[in-house]
Order: sequence, then C-alpha cells, then structure tokens
Amino acid sequence: MMPLGEAFYRRKVAQIQAALEPAGLDGLLLLDPHNVIYASGFVHSPSERPLGLYVPARGEPALFVPLLEAENAAATWITDIRTYFEYPGDEHPLQWMVRETGAARLGVDCLPCECARTFGALLVQTALVERMRWIKEPEELALIERAATYADYCLEYLAAHGAEIVRAGGSELDLLGACLAATRAKMEAEADPAWGARGVHIVGTVHSGPRAALPHGEPSRRIPQPGETLIAGIGAAVGGYHAESGATFILGEPTPDQWHCLEAAANCDAAARAALRSGTPCAEVNRAALDALRAAGLGDAIRHRIGHGMGLQGHEAPWLAPGDLTPLAPGMVFSCEPGIYRPGLDGYRTINTLIVTEGEARVPSRFLDTHPPAQRILAL
Amino acid sequence: MMPLGEAFYRRKVAQIQAALEPAGLDGLLLLDPHNVIYASGFVHSPSERPLGLYVPARGEPALFVPLLEAENAAATWITDIRTYFEYPGDEHPLQWMVRETGAARLGVDCLPCECARTFGALLVQTALVERMRWIKEPEELALIERAATYADYCLEYLAAHGAEIVRAGGSELDLLGACLAATRAKMEAEADPAWGARGVHIVGTVHSGPRAALPHGEPSRRIPQPGETLIAGIGAAVGGYHAESGATFILGEPTPDQWHCLEAAANCDAAARAALRSGTPCAEVNRAALDALRAAGLGDAIRHRIGHGMGLQGHEAPWLAPGDLTPLAPGMVFSCEPGIYRPGLDGYRTINTLIVTEGEARVPSRFLDTHPPAQRILAL
Repeated sequence: MMPLGEAFYRRKVAQIQAALEPAGLDGLLLLDPHNVIYASGFVHSPSERPLGLYVPARGEPALFVPLLEAENAAATWITDIRTYFEYPGDEHPLQWMVRETGAARLGVDCLPCECARTFGALLVQTALVERMRWIKEPEELALIERAATYADYCLEYLAAHGAEIVRAGGSELDLLGACLAATRAKMEAEADPAWGARGVHIVGTVHSGPRAALPHGEPSRRIPQPGETLIAGIGAAVGGYHAESGATFILGEPTPDQWHCLEAAANCDAAARAALRSGTPCAEVNRAALDALRAAGLGDAIRHRIGHGMGLQGHEAPWLAPGDLTPLAPGMVFSCEPGIYRPGLDGYRTINTLIVTEGEARVPSRFLDTHPPAQRILAL
Repeated sequence: MMPLGEAFYRRKVAQIQAALEPAGLDGLLLLDPHNVIYASGFVHSPSERPLGLYVPARGEPALFVPLLEAENAAATWITDIRTYFEYPGDEHPLQWMVRETGAARLGVDCLPCECARTFGALLVQTALVERMRWIKEPEELALIERAATYADYCLEYLAAHGAEIVRAGGSELDLLGACLAATRAKMEAEADPAWGARGVHIVGTVHSGPRAALPHGEPSRRIPQPGETLIAGIGAAVGGYHAESGATFILGEPTPDQWHCLEAAANCDAAARAALRSGTPCAEVNRAALDALRAAGLGDAIRHRIGHGMGLQGHEAPWLAPGDLTPLAPGMVFSCEPGIYRPGLDGYRTINTLIVTEGEARVPSRFLDTHPPAQRILAL
C-alpha cells in the first residue's frame, strides 16, 4: 500500500526523466530513503542495507533491494525488482547497483558515508529530487492538511483536559501520554487505506516551568505548577506527510510579563506569515519574524530559527533560517515556531504549519487561531 | 544524565588521543551521533543540525552544538561547549567546527552527504572510533546483558499469555502491544538513574502464518490461526545498549515439517555459537551457521545473513555476513538470527544475543535455552 497513487509516482518518474537528458545523465540512482519513497511509494525501513530506486533517462524504473525486502518491493507498482543477498556482501551493494544500471554517466542523490571516498568520483551528485520535493503537489498538500487537523486535535484535547490531569497530579509525561493516546485512537479509527502502509503517526513534547526554557529537552515526570508556562508541540503525519501545531499554555491567570511574551510570539507568527510571499528568500522570512521578538525586547531569548520545511520528513529543506537564500515558491510548506526561552525562568513556543501560495500563506494548523491566548489558560 | 560514568568517557577520549599522534592527526572531529555518545555520553536527538565532539591530540575535548542544545550539552562532564546559532547558517556549521578546532590535519569519522564534496579533501576520514566500539568493555556488556533480560521477559510474557490473547480474538498487533506494554512497565519500574537520559527502550515484531514468511514486514491486524507459526522478535535497550531475543511459536501441536524447521533453526543457532571463536572471520560464522540450514534441505528458505553487531546501535558493524572478514575478538556482541522463510507457507526465526569471549560464546539472551521447542507451543 502506497501513500499516493501510481499516477503520482509515474508523474514524478517522468519529471525526473525530463531533467536527466539536459543534465547529460543516463539515469539517476536514488539512495535517500525519502527520495525513494517520494518517487516510488515504496515505504520501507531504512537500515544499513542500501536500497535504491533507479530511474533511467528512458524506460521503466527499477528497485534495487536486499533479498529480505523482495516481497515488499514486489507489492509496489514497479515491476523491475532486483535483489542482492546481504550487506556488506562480497561485492558492496552500491557497486552492484552501479553495475546493474549499466549507465555510463550516472547521477546519485546522496552517498552513504562509507562510500563517499570509493564511489564519489564516479558518480554525479545531484539535488534534483530534493528540489522537486520542496514544491508539494495538491495530493501531498491534502495529506499535510489532514495531518494538521490531528495535531490540532491533540492540542484541543490538552486545552480541554490539561487542567484536570494536572490537578490529579499528572506530570508532563502524563499530559503528553493522554493527548497523544486520544489523538492516536482518533487517527487509527479514521485512517483511510489510501494513506498507505504507515498511515498515521503522531509525536509530541510537553515541557513546563523552567524546563520550558529548554528548546530541546525530553518531557519528564515533572508536575506543572501554578503560575508556570507549559509548551506543547505536536507533530502528526498522514500517509507519510508531516504537519505541526503547537501552543504555550499558562497554568492560571497570566501575569503582565506572561501576556507580553504570548503577544510577542503572536506578533512574530504574524510577521512570518506576512513575509511568507512567493519569491522572498527563506532567510528573509526568518529575519522578519525574529525581528518581531527583538522589537518586543526579547532578542536575548531567541534560541533558534523560525522554521523548517516539512513533507515526507518532519524537518526537511528549505529552511526558514540564516543562510538559506532559496526563494519561496507556491507549494512549499514550513513550520513557523516563534520561541522565547529564558533559562531558569520560563519558555514560550507556538507552532503553525504554513503553506506558500501565490497570495497569502495558507495555515492548515488552526489551533492558534481558534484558541487565542485567553483560551490557552489551564485553570488549576 | 549519561549512560556510563565520566571515568568511562575519559578513558575513551584518552584511547582516541593515544591513536591520534601515530596517525599524524592534530585531532578528531566526531560527527556520527553514536560516536559522539560513545566518547562523551552526550545523549541527544540527531537532526539536520550538525553536532560534533572534538578530541584534540592533547587536552580537553569540546562539544560543538547548535544553540538550542547548549543547556543539554552543559549538563555533561565536558566543560568546553561551543555553540553556533542555526542550520544552515551563513557559514555552514561544519565549516565553523573545522575552523574552531584550529587543527591543520584533522580527522573526521563521517561526513554528512551534502558536505562530502566540499570538505572531503580537507579532512582525513577514519574509522578509529567505529572500531573501538566493536569491542565492548565490561560496563557496556553489563548494560547489554541487562537489556537481554527484558527482551527475554517480553517473550516469556508471550509464552504465558499468547494463547489466551489469540483465543480472545487478538491480532499480531494485540499480541505485540500486550507483551511490550508489560515489559515496558517492568523496565520503567526497575530503571536505574545511572542508565541515563533515555534509560530504557523496547521494540518488537510479531508475524504469523504466511506473513511470517516476510523477513521485513510490519505487524498487522491479522489474527493468528491454529496450525500456524508465529515469529516474535524483541529488541531491548538499557542505557542506550541493545540486545535481542526472539522465538518462533507454533499455534497448536507442531507437524513433523514444523518440528523439522524448529530443529533446523536450533542447529543453525548451535553452529553459529560453535563457530563464534576469537580470531575467526565474521563471514565464516555466517557460512558455518547457514550451512546448517542448507544441510537440513532449507537452503532455498534462506533470506538473510545470520547476524549483525549490536551496541549503541541496534544494528552496527561488524556483520556476521558475506564480505565481512573482520576477525572476531572478545567483547564483540552479535545477534544470531537463523531464519527460514517459505513464501505463501510459513516462516521461522529465532534470535540470540552472543558475546565473543576467549572461550565459548556467552549468551545473555536465555529464552531459547529456558524454553525448548516443546515450550514454544501456544495451545489454542
């Protein structure tokens, strides 16, 4: 079962083929697992055993897989399945693949670390498929929009039940466990077979009090206390396509300082949305958004960029960050994550999923809009 | 919190340093997340943001981390923490790291795909730390042995409760969910803070009937039926160190053909154990073990090698597989996974964890020995 239909994958293969001849390549060997999924729908478990999709400049694609994936590969729409026994093998599987292609001038998306030295000079590394993945098609956006509804549902569950869980002595892990379990049950009940082998997936984090100031901490057994902030960040996937939604809750009536931070995060989010216009460089959206935090006197509390691309990976290029000068284009999807981190004190982060269009950004995550700050209070 | 103590990590750093001068290197930059954990204890979430441990030929090591990991890095024993703002950044983080080392001749363990072209020629790629990781120290083996007890417990739960779960209409996923939940609860209740930030972890698969013939399938909602085989494979980790245990159950009284396959798997396991002697090449253990399946007339049912290394990764080098000529040495740890796969009919796989010693292999996984085939019957 593949997340999108054969027509989608055949279109991707045709698009790759159209780009190969101008690039002077006889074919392209995809080794990155997400690139393979993108152009074939072959959802698999990446391991040390290399697995490749070969797209010749003309003709049908072939899957090169270890023997133990033979049946799984044969269940896709691709009919040319070639297998090697095992890794590492008397002949390195990558060498075997290169030989199997018969290509004189072979493109490759990415090389395993151990192979860079051996094969690097023989192959032409190209980001062709990575760049195709930047621009999502309507079928892909539909999956992302559906995923966003589940990330929202998880936050709605937390907004509705968070206070009672904390009052009963619940920890960060209990809060996270409860909202993920409720959402997972809903996702599984509503899962469409068309969403593929790994139809639905959801993960998240909950941090409270001084731990909310850790941009990258693990949820813990800590019990949130009155007066603190609580950051919840949720990532959901449908048919392999990711979306995020996130909010900061206040445990009780916010102080003026807490209101100020909530407003600053909202202004930062608004600035990112306003800057998210086709043609604008990615780094410029980051600058415009973070300027809103600086304008609120919170420049020292910035600990990360405003966002990252999303699609088959939870984090993927392009990046709304310094150094990424990629011009925005309709169909690109980004997280927008204003973060305010004050070590020893507290932290705030909200997350939206943004889709670049010809006009204003589309925002499939709805929680922040449907739950303005006054509705993010967990009354203990 | 780190899985092993500061003394362990300081010893590893000293061992690396002792190897740098003979190699003519001013220092070694570790970028592979498991190599970083191995030599520093800094357990972290790998992402697109590069994170490095720099070990100079003399002096104290330094952690190079993105800003959002600053507090997490500062919680380790390493005092020299250097941060960059974000990925990709105006300067690539790897370029920044190379500059920060000040080394003229710098070793590196592995390069991100995107960097192989840019930095490959400037750096000396070395498998020094990967090779150190092959040989586990007593502290590491203790964690692996403890992990094996939990993988065993999971199978014991299945042996005790599997039949009643299936009789109540339970599926592969129900069986897997029940034994993992019981084991996870036990692991969490018994977790020692010394096991570190991600103390315990357990995963597994359950496949039945014709699905058991898929070496790499996902557990499904299929309900196992009388007369079928059911493969359970469990991987547990304690303090980041992995072990596996696995068995094939028969749903009801085994047929002569099923007994034959169970015996062939046991003989294959015994052959691997007998061949697992210090000095023997890895590939030779694979050959000797798989020969036992061929001798039983099951050569056509072989779909994969006999095993893989285990440690900080569930699968890591060296490999008990064709092409790996590494001589076995005391302290190496391997899975031993005789697999018999007959598409359309059934499948069998058992798993032991084996430790190479000066003498006979040590076997921390006990289930196969404590539950001979007659005790792997789930009477429906």
